[in-house]
Amino acid sequence: MPSLQTQLESACHSVQHEIGVGKVANYIPALAQVPPGKFGAAIISISGEKASFGDAQEAFSIQSISKLFALTAALNVHNNNIWDRVGREPSGNAFNSIVQLEKENGIPRNPLINAGALVVTDMLLGEQTATDTVTQLLSLVQRLADNESIAIDKTVAESERNTAHRNASLAHFMKSFGNLECTVSDVLDAYCQQCAIAMSCEQLARSALFLANNGTDPLTRQCIVDEERARRLNAMMMLCGHYDASGDFAHRVGLPGKSGVGGGIVAVVPDVGAVAVWSPCLNENGNSHAGTAALEALVRATKWNVF
Amino acid sequence: MPSLQTQLESACHSVQHEIGVGKVANYIPALAQVPPGKFGAAIISISGEKASFGDAQEAFSIQSISKLFALTAALNVHNNNIWDRVGREPSGNAFNSIVQLEKENGIPRNPLINAGALVVTDMLLGEQTATDTVTQLLSLVQRLADNESIAIDKTVAESERNTAHRNASLAHFMKSFGNLECTVSDVLDAYCQQCAIAMSCEQLARSALFLANNGTDPLTRQCIVDEERARRLNAMMMLCGHYDASGDFAHRVGLPGKSGVGGGIVAVVPDVGAVAVWSPCLNENGNSHAGTAALEALVRATKWNVF
Amino acid sequence: MPSLQTQLESACHSVQHEIGVGKVANYIPALAQVPPGKFGAAIISISGEKASFGDAQEAFSIQSISKLFALTAALNVHNNNIWDRVGREPSGNAFNSIVQLEKENGIPRNPLINAGALVVTDMLLGEQTATDTVTQLLSLVQRLADNESIAIDKTVAESERNTAHRNASLAHFMKSFGNLECTVSDVLDAYCQQCAIAMSCEQLARSALFLANNGTDPLTRQCIVDEERARRLNAMMMLCGHYDASGDFAHRVGLPGKSGVGGGIVAVVPDVGAVAVWSPCLNENGNSHAGTAALEALVRATKWNVF
Amino acid sequence: MPSLQTQLESACHSVQHEIGVGKVANYIPALAQVPPGKFGAAIISISGEKASFGDAQEAFSIQSISKLFALTAALNVHNNNIWDRVGREPSGNAFNSIVQLEKENGIPRNPLINAGALVVTDMLLGEQTATDTVTQLLSLVQRLADNESIAIDKTVAESERNTAHRNASLAHFMKSFGNLECTVSDVLDAYCQQCAIAMSCEQLARSALFLANNGTDPLTRQCIVDEERARRLNAMMMLCGHYDASGDFAHRVGLPGKSGVGGGIVAVVPDVGAVAVWSPCLNENGNSHAGTAALEALVRATKWNVF
Repeated sequence: MPSLQTQLESACHSVQHEIGVGKVANYIPALAQVPPGKFGAAIISISGEKASFGDAQEAFSIQSISKLFALTAALNVHNNNIWDRVGREPSGNAFNSIVQLEKENGIPRNPLINAGALVVTDMLLGEQTATDTVTQLLSLVQRLADNESIAIDKTVAESERNTAHRNASLAHFMKSFGNLECTVSDVLDAYCQQCAIAMSCEQLARSALFLANNGTDPLTRQCIVDEERARRLNAMMMLCGHYDASGDFAHRVGLPGKSGVGGGIVAVVPDVGAVAVWSPCLNENGNSHAGTAALEALVRATKWNVF
Repeated sequence: MPSLQTQLESACHSVQHEIGVGKVANYIPALAQVPPGKFGAAIISISGEKASFGDAQEAFSIQSISKLFALTAALNVHNNNIWDRVGREPSGNAFNSIVQLEKENGIPRNPLINAGALVVTDMLLGEQTATDTVTQLLSLVQRLADNESIAIDKTVAESERNTAHRNASLAHFMKSFGNLECTVSDVLDAYCQQCAIAMSCEQLARSALFLANNGTDPLTRQCIVDEERARRLNAMMMLCGHYDASGDFAHRVGLPGKSGVGGGIVAVVPDVGAVAVWSPCLNENGNSHAGTAALEALVRATKWNVF
Repeated sequence: MPSLQTQLESACHSVQHEIGVGKVANYIPALAQVPPGKFGAAIISISGEKASFGDAQEAFSIQSISKLFALTAALNVHNNNIWDRVGREPSGNAFNSIVQLEKENGIPRNPLINAGALVVTDMLLGEQTATDTVTQLLSLVQRLADNESIAIDKTVAESERNTAHRNASLAHFMKSFGNLECTVSDVLDAYCQQCAIAMSCEQLARSALFLANNGTDPLTRQCIVDEERARRLNAMMMLCGHYDASGDFAHRVGLPGKSGVGGGIVAVVPDVGAVAVWSPCLNENGNSHAGTAALEALVRATKWNVF
Repeated sequence: MPSLQTQLESACHSVQHEIGVGKVANYIPALAQVPPGKFGAAIISISGEKASFGDAQEAFSIQSISKLFALTAALNVHNNNIWDRVGREPSGNAFNSIVQLEKENGIPRNPLINAGALVVTDMLLGEQTATDTVTQLLSLVQRLADNESIAIDKTVAESERNTAHRNASLAHFMKSFGNLECTVSDVLDAYCQQCAIAMSCEQLARSALFLANNGTDPLTRQCIVDEERARRLNAMMMLCGHYDASGDFAHRVGLPGKSGVGGGIVAVVPDVGAVAVWSPCLNENGNSHAGTAALEALVRATKWNVF
């Protein structure tokens, strides 16, 4: 069997013509300036074997991938109580749709769309300040990635906060239904900072490794979540991790994964390892075009598909 | 033919058993404290004849009725340009629904629902402060009512501002579509103050008299709007003045009118005069229960129905 | 004051350049073949004075205008019981939308959109055959128009019946909610025939004259509906008569009216008379472009606007 | 490791108190008469090992589980062309919602909700009669289950056909958008028959075994679909197999599965085998209450969860 490195290179080479297809997210200047030709990929196995390709060590804005970490943190504090305030069904709508919220009385469909992630952030805030909350979350991410250098891109965070009208609308809407305990302003402060965490593919793959190993980091032996919760986080990513293109991702890739508008995708291969890809040009559903293609090629070769 | 006073008394007496049916608006304390048994009514004809009944001289919070005055003011400044940013069709939805905004890209259906009124307030703001904007609007209302004592209830305004999450959601949503020029905060400041204008039935009827006389105040001879605009304001009220119960109001009353959750309703009888009623208990659509019944009785007797 | 004929001619001449703007309805061949340059208009006053212009004597397919006659007939049989099965609010949606039906459990918003008209037809059917039902309705129309020659265009009726999938969908949907008593097939048979009634502008204006005279035909002295019902039918047309452009029609014309995709519009001027126009090219909301313009010009000159 | 039979018995015993919780589907008499206390379960492994419990040999109406077989058949004929006419995303709505169809121009979200399954049936029909189409599909099911005695319950089929108004509505709606080639009547005839296929848990588990073995029946060695298609069918079931509770099923069970309102659920354990459960009382989302609980218990013990 070929090495991880060989398999990764082969998959990445096969999709080089897809790089640059689609559009770089342009709703904030800091994201719009990312060169469209960037492409990175990294794998880490539960035995610690690593592979990387291209810009795998360059940090980018993880954006919605942070929803996975925030959900992990919130479950560890509030356990299954969080399901009183957010559902776990696919939304059947765009990531920032508000229609469902009106129909379902301010309860978002799942924690991986914006509305649901805002509720999760509200839970993390509790009595704390936004700064303390984000510091804690960042600390979790650093621990998961086994790397203390991971930081928030302040320029991106500020830029997002200044243009967060759609998220502000979602937050105020839920607040009007009583499904937000903190102030909208604090929730948005924390949320915009968590979205602006910057990580490389290598760091990102490493940070999701516990999900490939029943909740326990296989290299540090730390138990991050219990086995059942790890499976459920994976199930959540499979059904809701790619917004309204989760079905397409399951169809083509067949792995639990979470994407962000920064062009990153992290995917979990249960009992095998974790993979991260990055390429900033997005398809019409807001997911990395070349990144998805790379994962598809990799899974076709490795048969890592869970189905 | 019986005098206006006789007709008004007769109509009001016939609906005394309806007073107290329904619920006083309770989303802010200042409104919730209004005694449910209040009931007032006033008529003024274009010749200056007056009639009044019950609590006709007691000021109450006009709430959404202010949308009529704000629209009048905005049309006088921006003319038909306002129709680029707000529609003029009935909404087919609750007054604070956001579903339509998502479907129609941030353009509210009409200026008499909350989203549309926020856009109108944004237009009135322009380069001004919220305070100046509201002062100007109040000045228009005072001129229309020919009464300089009309004021804003600061307690209501502050209370509304503190709980304005649904309106904040609508405003941020439209801002995200580029349909709000000022800051959301300024728009809400001005909007919450305009809703908190306090007027009596007598003042309210007087303030709408120009709409019964082709746009010209028949008593002061001031031209407020031209004839065509007066007709169009009346048409707007007929189709959209009672939120998602405008059809019911047209069916039962058949006059252009605008209601507010404070329990007030102002109605225009073209070429005859204007009527205002007030009773704080609301039906399920948010319109005064006894007030609507009084108008229905009055119109049945007077045949003032425009149809 | 100029004669009706002079006023009508003047208004029609002023909009000749609007003829041909828009699109002829093309969902069935029989309608698509109507020459786009057709234009007719007719007025009849409650005193019997008549005016006509252009193709005022040429019969065309009245289509949705038949909803007004069917509603009149159903009210005469079932009185206010019909409001248990159909609402009377503007829809805020296209004429054939099904979304609202799902949200509101199979109760259509009003009797002048397709879903509501299908319920009305179901009420008219009762125990009768579709043929008998349509014969009765046609007989009412003949009586209203004082003209026994009015007939159904069988080609149009058959063509509509064969392509009635959207209406079949609405009918089956309501049937699934228990809001249709007869078979879907019978309802569609009757509905497609009633839509295919062919009338000229002169006949159409004549047929609506009772609505300008408190429900009594001013020329034959027959009481068609009582005064209150006449006002309510007018109110219904004002709020819902032009599908999702009723607000625009109220804004521009300000009269109760009902349009059809055949390019006809009938409008009522309370206490004055009735007007019908016909021009087959439709605007984007499915209403006659030149016909609306002609009514707008006529009302501007005559000040017949009810507001 | 305990035998399959021991594991199945243990899981089933642990959920006996859940039997009878929920409601038997009552929209057609033939389904409403099924005794609520029925409960069966069966497993078959890819090596041919079998286990069964309770009413595992009693045939019940598979209802929506037939959508899996119809999709398999359609993919074998039309390959990926079917994705031009039906999506592969979760719906975020009830199984029979029509709202999404209006928004997305008659293209159903996926082939496992009613609208999508009707399109699939339309594809299977092609130039054939409904009878021939159903005979072919039944023949596929017999082959998959390796059992020629499987038949259609004619009483159920007729009963469904007579009350299929909601499905008729969906079908006519799609027909109006041009997304149905055959007549609505033929599509409904075939669809209602396929839903009325009666199978036991043992037969059902057997029929899905190919999906646990990369598309090839492990016992007969017949290739039913290729490996990629098998994975994709599993992915489809994981994301869309339980209507608007697919997220809940993924969360609790974590296997690709398809439920029916007859109370059956079939689930695939990749590389291990297939499981079927049956208990007619449904939860509020229309899925078997006790059946889901049994699968959850079984998977917790066996760790068959794919995540």
